[in-house]
Amino acid sequence: MFLALAGGVGGAKLALGLTQVLPPDKLMIVVNTGDDFYHLGLRICPDIDTVTYTLAGIANPDTGWGLRDETWNFMDFQGRLGADTWFRLGDKDLATHLERTRRLGAGETLSSITALFAKKLGIRHPVVPATDNEIMTIVKTPDGPLGFQEYFVRLKCEPVATGFDFPGAAKAQASPRLEKAFKRDDIEAVIICPSNPYVSIAPILAVPSIKRFLTTARIPVIAVSPIIGGQAIKGPAAKMMKELGVTPSSIAVSNYYSRVASALVIDTADAHEAEPIRAHGMRVCVTNTVMTTNAEKTQLAEDVIAFARSLRG
Amino acid sequence: MFLALAGGVGGAKLALGLTQVLPPDKLMIVVNTGDDFYHLGLRICPDIDTVTYTLAGIANPDTGWGLRDETWNFMDFQGRLGADTWFRLGDKDLATHLERTRRLGAGETLSSITALFAKKLGIRHPVVPATDNEIMTIVKTPDGPLGFQEYFVRLKCEPVATGFDFPGAAKAQASPRLEKAFKRDDIEAVIICPSNPYVSIAPILAVPSIKRFLTTARIPVIAVSPIIGGQAIKGPAAKMMKELGVTPSSIAVSNYYSRVASALVIDTADAHEAEPIRAHGMRVCVTNTVMTTNAEKTQLAEDVIAFARSLRG
Repeated sequence: MFLALAGGVGGAKLALGLTQVLPPDKLMIVVNTGDDFYHLGLRICPDIDTVTYTLAGIANPDTGWGLRDETWNFMDFQGRLGADTWFRLGDKDLATHLERTRRLGAGETLSSITALFAKKLGIRHPVVPATDNEIMTIVKTPDGPLGFQEYFVRLKCEPVATGFDFPGAAKAQASPRLEKAFKRDDIEAVIICPSNPYVSIAPILAVPSIKRFLTTARIPVIAVSPIIGGQAIKGPAAKMMKELGVTPSSIAVSNYYSRVASALVIDTADAHEAEPIRAHGMRVCVTNTVMTTNAEKTQLAEDVIAFARSLRG
Repeated sequence: MFLALAGGVGGAKLALGLTQVLPPDKLMIVVNTGDDFYHLGLRICPDIDTVTYTLAGIANPDTGWGLRDETWNFMDFQGRLGADTWFRLGDKDLATHLERTRRLGAGETLSSITALFAKKLGIRHPVVPATDNEIMTIVKTPDGPLGFQEYFVRLKCEPVATGFDFPGAAKAQASPRLEKAFKRDDIEAVIICPSNPYVSIAPILAVPSIKRFLTTARIPVIAVSPIIGGQAIKGPAAKMMKELGVTPSSIAVSNYYSRVASALVIDTADAHEAEPIRAHGMRVCVTNTVMTTNAEKTQLAEDVIAFARSLRG
């Protein structure tokens, strides 16, 4: 059985690939909850929704968030009433947030709600929040701390990031199904999907029992580099690296993950980085990591699984 | 200055007529809040919304509730997620409920939110909730009490109504602008719009200071009968009368309002009821009360105002 840790877009793509090569009982997709937040009274979980919509085949392929064939009449009317419209909420997408908020208010856990929605949308593989506790992602900037969606959506990642904080994470517990999975003896590997290390994967690893499992279990932990040719396919990962004084590269990803991962999957464009990474004691697999087509998602999933199995041998 | 007490559809029609013949400083529209309720965590105020949308010229002319050119993608997706869909919420309409709920949660009053939305939608006349306190409308039935929207929307008015209760009303205060209006010395008359007496007007009158004003102020209180030819234009008023052992008629409306109103406007179709009503000490105006066209709304408003002024002379 494989555990896959995923953030939003890139994580969702590899998660989709993995669901196409592993049966539901051989894969658990663990999703970042660090950028969950309250907006207009609604509990919004961007990464859970991106993963869920992607696995259900109903994600918007252009935006990287939200639903395909979406409409915006709610937001238009909201604007007429003078309400905040900086965080775009589609008419269909809104049902997810409202029903989630209602169920949370009735005492259900994020885990059980996420499982219910996944089931209703026809997803057979388990989609599990990293934690049911509320945690936050704070982006530190020279002008002070920013909530992640403020930074990411409202300010379009323009402020300089000087660091990150995950309030709540130190006291958070891994969600129940994940805690239970940690006790299994058949976990083959943990796959860290090609999501932003600082704001998609770090909040997952900031949950103590998850970090402890990765660093103490005697199983391969394989990260897939989200950096290709010094750039991120999507999002601010490369920009953040530069701001933190690191040259964006798969080497930098390798260094970042050196304490939790033992192996890295890098793109063929970065093949020349394989030796320097290996020199630091990390195992490396070089393959195509760009997942534009569905075939590419499946192929990368197969490559990662084969690589994981080769590490155990 | 005139006060108009209004429920949903019929009330909104006459309110619209009144706005076309009276300037904003000569009319206050006081709206029923008895059937307001919480649904999916949202505070929904059906009569305030119907009046507001009608005055803004954006009401759905076919349903009697909601917005014209509405879409239903939220509800469709909500259904996919297994959520309750018995109370229909359009995509645009939802913005009203969500923003109202958010503002109430932030401590704003229903009065101030209603005034804000009215302003944003270009309404110049004051639209005022009867009360800012939460009250309820309970329909008593042989099988037990029902919340009004349960009875009205989910059960389509099918249960037999044996009576009504308005929990919260006895301790409710009239909303601030209405309390202030009660102290003015230039109120010419109170107009009870042709709304359902039992579930649209009674909850307004159940607020003690409103009832006190109507019964002690020395000004005409004129009710417009919602019953024409023994039937209600819309809604369960006539059905309720039968279930309460009363023959649906303008005479029944006159009897119902005898303690608060001194005059009744009835439809030409009920002209033969004028004498029996007058015999009970009520002044009567017979005119066309069917408001299909805008001209009919304006004409009825003019007739009611002329009738009110004739009563003062």
